[in-house]
Amino acid sequence: MEDLMQKITNLAKRRGFIFPSSEIYGGVEALWDYGPLGSILKNNLKRAWIKRFIQQRDDVALIDAAILMHPQVWKASGHVEHFTDPLIECKTCHSRFRADHMIDGRFVGQGEAKEPNQCPTCGDKDFTPARQFNLMFKTFLGPVENETNVTYLRPETAQAMFTNFQLVQESQRLQVPFGIAQVGRSFRNEITTGNFIFRSREFEIAEIEYFVQPWQDDAVFETWLNEWKQFCVAAGLSEKNLRLFEHPKGSLAHYSKRTVDIEYRFPFGWGEIAGVANRTDFDLKQHAEASGKKLDILDEKTGKKYIPFVIEPTLGIDRLLLAIFCEAYEEVGGGRTTTTKAAKEKEIVLHLPPLLAPVQVAVLPLVRNKQELTVRAREVFKLLKQHFMCQYDETGSIGRRYRRQDEIGTPFCVTVDFESVQKNDVTLRDRDTMKQDRVSLLDLVSAIKERIHV
Amino acid sequence: MEDLMQKITNLAKRRGFIFPSSEIYGGVEALWDYGPLGSILKNNLKRAWIKRFIQQRDDVALIDAAILMHPQVWKASGHVEHFTDPLIECKTCHSRFRADHMIDGRFVGQGEAKEPNQCPTCGDKDFTPARQFNLMFKTFLGPVENETNVTYLRPETAQAMFTNFQLVQESQRLQVPFGIAQVGRSFRNEITTGNFIFRSREFEIAEIEYFVQPWQDDAVFETWLNEWKQFCVAAGLSEKNLRLFEHPKGSLAHYSKRTVDIEYRFPFGWGEIAGVANRTDFDLKQHAEASGKKLDILDEKTGKKYIPFVIEPTLGIDRLLLAIFCEAYEEVGGGRTTTTKAAKEKEIVLHLPPLLAPVQVAVLPLVRNKQELTVRAREVFKLLKQHFMCQYDETGSIGRRYRRQDEIGTPFCVTVDFESVQKNDVTLRDRDTMKQDRVSLLDLVSAIKERIHV
Repeated sequence: MEDLMQKITNLAKRRGFIFPSSEIYGGVEALWDYGPLGSILKNNLKRAWIKRFIQQRDDVALIDAAILMHPQVWKASGHVEHFTDPLIECKTCHSRFRADHMIDGRFVGQGEAKEPNQCPTCGDKDFTPARQFNLMFKTFLGPVENETNVTYLRPETAQAMFTNFQLVQESQRLQVPFGIAQVGRSFRNEITTGNFIFRSREFEIAEIEYFVQPWQDDAVFETWLNEWKQFCVAAGLSEKNLRLFEHPKGSLAHYSKRTVDIEYRFPFGWGEIAGVANRTDFDLKQHAEASGKKLDILDEKTGKKYIPFVIEPTLGIDRLLLAIFCEAYEEVGGGRTTTTKAAKEKEIVLHLPPLLAPVQVAVLPLVRNKQELTVRAREVFKLLKQHFMCQYDETGSIGRRYRRQDEIGTPFCVTVDFESVQKNDVTLRDRDTMKQDRVSLLDLVSAIKERIHV
Repeated sequence: MEDLMQKITNLAKRRGFIFPSSEIYGGVEALWDYGPLGSILKNNLKRAWIKRFIQQRDDVALIDAAILMHPQVWKASGHVEHFTDPLIECKTCHSRFRADHMIDGRFVGQGEAKEPNQCPTCGDKDFTPARQFNLMFKTFLGPVENETNVTYLRPETAQAMFTNFQLVQESQRLQVPFGIAQVGRSFRNEITTGNFIFRSREFEIAEIEYFVQPWQDDAVFETWLNEWKQFCVAAGLSEKNLRLFEHPKGSLAHYSKRTVDIEYRFPFGWGEIAGVANRTDFDLKQHAEASGKKLDILDEKTGKKYIPFVIEPTLGIDRLLLAIFCEAYEEVGGGRTTTTKAAKEKEIVLHLPPLLAPVQVAVLPLVRNKQELTVRAREVFKLLKQHFMCQYDETGSIGRRYRRQDEIGTPFCVTVDFESVQKNDVTLRDRDTMKQDRVSLLDLVSAIKERIHV
């Protein structure tokens, strides 16, 4: 199963989903660029998330905060002090490792630290003592590079939801319970990286800070855990490849009362793609104290003021995408779409959910050397791209073109054949069933919209 | 006119479009957070841009690259050497300024530098000599903070389009001319900031690197300049507030053969919101040389290889948004929507294009104390938010609620009155004309879609 990761990485590069960053310079470890198909796929996923959790509800407000924040934020939040991993270095080859022990794919904290017996790179056995290394990328605001001007690239999006808590609540006239959501870039200077886009130094997270009355936290926690899991399923993951991991009390983050991860069964093992944490009133209290601002809420029933508790559902966009790839990837025996000499080659079908697929419709004239077909096909293409992400392809046999589209997960192919020109229709081919329906040009847009569930 | 900026800044904060970043800590100069309405407005603008320049064309591919790149990129691009401003500091109060002279709101290069006669902050006259200050934010990849590990937050998105040029071209089987597009966060450690979101340290740009045969550059330049201007107009800017500025040969950037800015007439004067540059083959040549990779293209007609020229249309998303705000903002005399005591207050109407407005439809029961109306209104709200960004509001007089919506640019208000309940219809109010049509519930979704031009 391990080499499924390699196959996905290769496909992602070859077809333009995901490239190694700065590849012409040999790449940079754990940095990735989303290519033409990947960028649209990721946009579609983020849009689906926003539609479900912001547009279709009335209790969650989206924000889009600056990545750079006031340095004080990261002191108050505890990140300057606690957001560290124990780093050791091989004295011989200078390879660096996390000193905390890995069990079943999960780093389990320094309490249980066990140094590697020998360096996985050079085989030597002499390591530096572990030192706490802060994972936040550091930079300087203004021209003077001193301690006063240090700030950090955010390692999570959550803090801006806390610093904007009052501005959002007042400007939107929101009553507890309500949520503030954000999806955006975050940065972690990871010591250990790998597994393609699973552990990168720059990644995108979608999170909600859901503010509740302190005595409602446990029930709301369950609700969000369920909502979150349902979203993963709606994005195409199957229940059998999902499981929950309840963090033991002893290994909870410094702010957390309870944390449950949602894990996906990757080819390399179970890995966290999402989670829900009960951050209690830790963050708002810290920021209230550090800033001198009151961040409490009046309970109209009792007349008492309180600082809300926070339930935080978090989702790694890149990790969910990787899981979607793993789930969608299928290799089928030759001959699925072709009966000619290519029939013996294996074919790849990417079963992406139609709403997420980067190319929603491909428009294909049956053959390229009949102008009546290509002219009509280009007209159909022109019509469809007002509504959908489309590709036009006339190069190669029709079977080969279906394969190209199957490989990138295009759910629908529209083919213009000789009958089409006479009857003003096309065939609409379904990627998964390979069934072809004849559809009138007049109904085509709505027929596709219906199948995509737009 | 200057105080229009203050009014917009106030409205943006009060209603939740844009907040000062980390405001509870006193804010950070030139960093801003998009609030609940601003984040959706910005998303809508980016989506409209992607639809127009990627979905509806077939020659431009979108990418979404990591913000952190290989350090070598910024050396090859010339940014490490050239991306600087001349910085001077008042010896008395340590205020910092750009030493290049400002003419008509534009910094005009050090050649024409003229130090201020006296410090605008403290009035003293003694400055440090000008030094070149690099505007890129610096950070370190990995745990060791030395020169080898220095990299930068990208100050533009363009370079990733050059480093991915070949991967995109090959994976998408594109023929010159074609473009690579990107919209995303960029960072500049500006010495001079201000005018709300006009000059921030973190901002979003949308750009296309359009690769052409070297002898086609001038004609393609004109085409993109026109495309770009048309987009600004489609986003709501009026022609009379737009002008072009042709950069004189002497002040062109180091990579440019020709640059034309699109400027908007802001309350504080004309300011650049977009532009088109002819970057020639500078960037691809630099990266080919620095990386040792061949980045040339075979001309199938002549059989000769060449490095394409690049026409680069660039758009400042935040600046365009600010222009859209300025254009949309109107204060009208009291009594537009109310006839009661509030009638004497001024009313704000934000004439945002319906496609961009963060709230597309507000659902309002005529009064809140009749359950037949509120129950029906909530049903309508539930229906509409499957399709649109909606707000439900039952608090205050109907006139006051219309005003609230006018102020945030909501193009349509759906009101449920007593007749609605009997006839299964609603009134649909247009923000700009204030005309109200009765629309059947069955037709409501399509009636609104038609008016928004979705």
